[in-house]
Amino acid sequence: MILMNNPGDKEVLRLLKQRMESVSQVEEAVKEIIRRVKEEGDRALEEFLKRFEKHPVGIENLRVTEKEISEAQVEEEFVETIKMVIEDLKEFHRRQEERSFFFTTKGGSFLGEMVVPLESVGIYVPGGKVPYFSTLLMCAVPAIVAGVERIVVTTPPDENGGISPYILKTCEILGLKEIYRMGGAHAVAALTYGTETVKPVDKIVGPGGVFVTLAKKHVYGDVGIDSIAGPSEITIVTDGSVDLDLVAADFLSQAEHDENAMSVVITTSREVFEKLPHVIERHLEALPEERRKTARISTENFGTIILTDSLKRAFEISNLIAPEHLEVLVEKPFESLGYIKNAGSVFLGKYTCESVGDYGAGPNHVLPTFRSARFSSGLRVSDFTKKIFITYLSEEDFKRKGELYSKMARWEGFEAHARAIDVRRGKL
Amino acid sequence: MILMNNPGDKEVLRLLKQRMESVSQVEEAVKEIIRRVKEEGDRALEEFLKRFEKHPVGIENLRVTEKEISEAQVEEEFVETIKMVIEDLKEFHRRQEERSFFFTTKGGSFLGEMVVPLESVGIYVPGGKVPYFSTLLMCAVPAIVAGVERIVVTTPPDENGGISPYILKTCEILGLKEIYRMGGAHAVAALTYGTETVKPVDKIVGPGGVFVTLAKKHVYGDVGIDSIAGPSEITIVTDGSVDLDLVAADFLSQAEHDENAMSVVITTSREVFEKLPHVIERHLEALPEERRKTARISTENFGTIILTDSLKRAFEISNLIAPEHLEVLVEKPFESLGYIKNAGSVFLGKYTCESVGDYGAGPNHVLPTFRSARFSSGLRVSDFTKKIFITYLSEEDFKRKGELYSKMARWEGFEAHARAIDVRRGKL
Repeated sequence: MILMNNPGDKEVLRLLKQRMESVSQVEEAVKEIIRRVKEEGDRALEEFLKRFEKHPVGIENLRVTEKEISEAQVEEEFVETIKMVIEDLKEFHRRQEERSFFFTTKGGSFLGEMVVPLESVGIYVPGGKVPYFSTLLMCAVPAIVAGVERIVVTTPPDENGGISPYILKTCEILGLKEIYRMGGAHAVAALTYGTETVKPVDKIVGPGGVFVTLAKKHVYGDVGIDSIAGPSEITIVTDGSVDLDLVAADFLSQAEHDENAMSVVITTSREVFEKLPHVIERHLEALPEERRKTARISTENFGTIILTDSLKRAFEISNLIAPEHLEVLVEKPFESLGYIKNAGSVFLGKYTCESVGDYGAGPNHVLPTFRSARFSSGLRVSDFTKKIFITYLSEEDFKRKGELYSKMARWEGFEAHARAIDVRRGKL
Repeated sequence: MILMNNPGDKEVLRLLKQRMESVSQVEEAVKEIIRRVKEEGDRALEEFLKRFEKHPVGIENLRVTEKEISEAQVEEEFVETIKMVIEDLKEFHRRQEERSFFFTTKGGSFLGEMVVPLESVGIYVPGGKVPYFSTLLMCAVPAIVAGVERIVVTTPPDENGGISPYILKTCEILGLKEIYRMGGAHAVAALTYGTETVKPVDKIVGPGGVFVTLAKKHVYGDVGIDSIAGPSEITIVTDGSVDLDLVAADFLSQAEHDENAMSVVITTSREVFEKLPHVIERHLEALPEERRKTARISTENFGTIILTDSLKRAFEISNLIAPEHLEVLVEKPFESLGYIKNAGSVFLGKYTCESVGDYGAGPNHVLPTFRSARFSSGLRVSDFTKKIFITYLSEEDFKRKGELYSKMARWEGFEAHARAIDVRRGKL
């Protein structure tokens, strides 16, 4: 664990930089996978499915059947819970809906912007031991609210070729029927360029491991992507008014995610600064072995506790970190909103641990990591629409402004641009 | 020129693909430039300034002085025109302004989204022989409307180290004072990672050549970028109701941009299909030599005229192309809006040639190219803000839903997530 007493900006930035450079180097392999799927289609895809996923079903069974979906067995309570969460997520995301607009000018022109949903998106749901149905919900709900017609899900299968019943049931409840059992960089490539079996999509969203992340960065431009997500992070600002057990539990809820996850506590309380490491240790011991192992490595490498003189300075540091998740565990949490400039998602007050947001209190949990909250936002409805600009210039406005536009074109040296205006002015 | 009579989707896509693969391979060089600027700062930056730009001023004069800005000499009409255009652009972009929102639940929770302007952005203004003041306007106005505090401009200097007075005057009118004379991949790297002389920014916007484009793709994630812009494109849909001279002039206004620019006409009129090539040839001959050379190469390589049976099919093909600019030169242009699904910016009716949009009728001219209008939009105010999610869960809602969230966490296998909830339920 790292302890910092009133650090300067540079010291904090140095710490963050170290972590950002620990990202692995598999770039060449990823590029080669993408090139081959793009050029060879199914043939390359099948090869990679076998090589990387020990894919036990052939490409002819890549798509999950309706029968598999309808036969997925889960607890009854799961279905009820998912339905509730979908409603809560829709309630929030509906408020992000954009409207087409237009206005007219005195001279009779018409200017506007038309909001159009994307035609198709692919949702990448990470596999492995965790059935990330919550991520599936977070990606699908804004796409549905936006009005995307074709929503494709892809996720790596288990060793028998199966997909978690939690994932399949969630798809069924959401009404999603196009599901592929594939993961990794080859899945990203197949969704980008299409193969004989997989029709391409316009945009790929959802987090993944390092292969998926690099693949998304590589295909970006040929297809839309949501963001390049790195390991997860939390920053907790606390003034000592909240029980240390809460702070420790929240600290570890992030640390259990990944060995490269980063949990930071910034506090104005010397008592918290001194006692928290011991409370965290106690909570660590209470975790089941596998989670404890991951959480301990993350805590040792990146877990950080910072003492500051004031809450204002605490938020300055948190803005510098630009954390994915920011918990504000202080006496008057709402009063700190004005200090928050960089964060993906903010959790206010003692009952709002990050977990309640992860599982669907309302806002999305696909969020900017690695300081990208400085310039980007969590997944939103607008990520699933495009805005098309519309211009209609009336004859009257054209007569008043056309000559000026043609002058501008000539100041830049674009004669043919100027002539396109002049031909309408009868000046050619 | 390419002529296609009622082509199928596949034929159109094959044509587009050919063009997309003609992008050059300078990736390794770009990566090395970025790595060195990131690691060595000013020392590497100075080396690249000298090597690539034959930079005649040292790094100590990298920043343009206030004196240079105030002494820039331009026509008086230029100042008046720019002021008019800024007002028109502001009028449009103000309507894109987003609002923070929140709502409360019956149980007393508070959920919302806070819109915060980016702290700093860098505008890349391409150099060379063209003083792209119009691009500067298009990048700066939405940033100003969004409320970005620090707006930096970078542009490659001429052989004497000077910057075009049109650029400097435009900066002065816009109130921009932090201007660097540098271009290329090293400028992108300097703005991303910072050097002793250049303070880093949160996002870089604006188009550039292939070095700049690849550099932006490479630094994406460490800094925000607007998009990866390729050579410009126009698609013109016409039913033959408009004078062919207009169509030909607009066709060439795009072709003069770049040898890789692409102008496409889709028409339902056999007369247009047959006669247009000759009219284009006549207009080509009227261009000054240098513009003519570029426009001719672009026309020969990528200029395309497509005949279709119906306007509906014409728009189907234009949606497949997903053009940066779409001109609708038909008798009743507004009636086609419902058919348009993919386009960066649409120009309706006979007086609305693309040039009037390029020079500031209202919407932005920084637009998605290379089919990316399928999933992305032109530059907008929202590109200069981030949306921070806010959750406050009341005790009442927590008591009602907390247990379900902790069950979801356990279904996914995240014990520490569940415990963060349980500790608040008194269940640990």
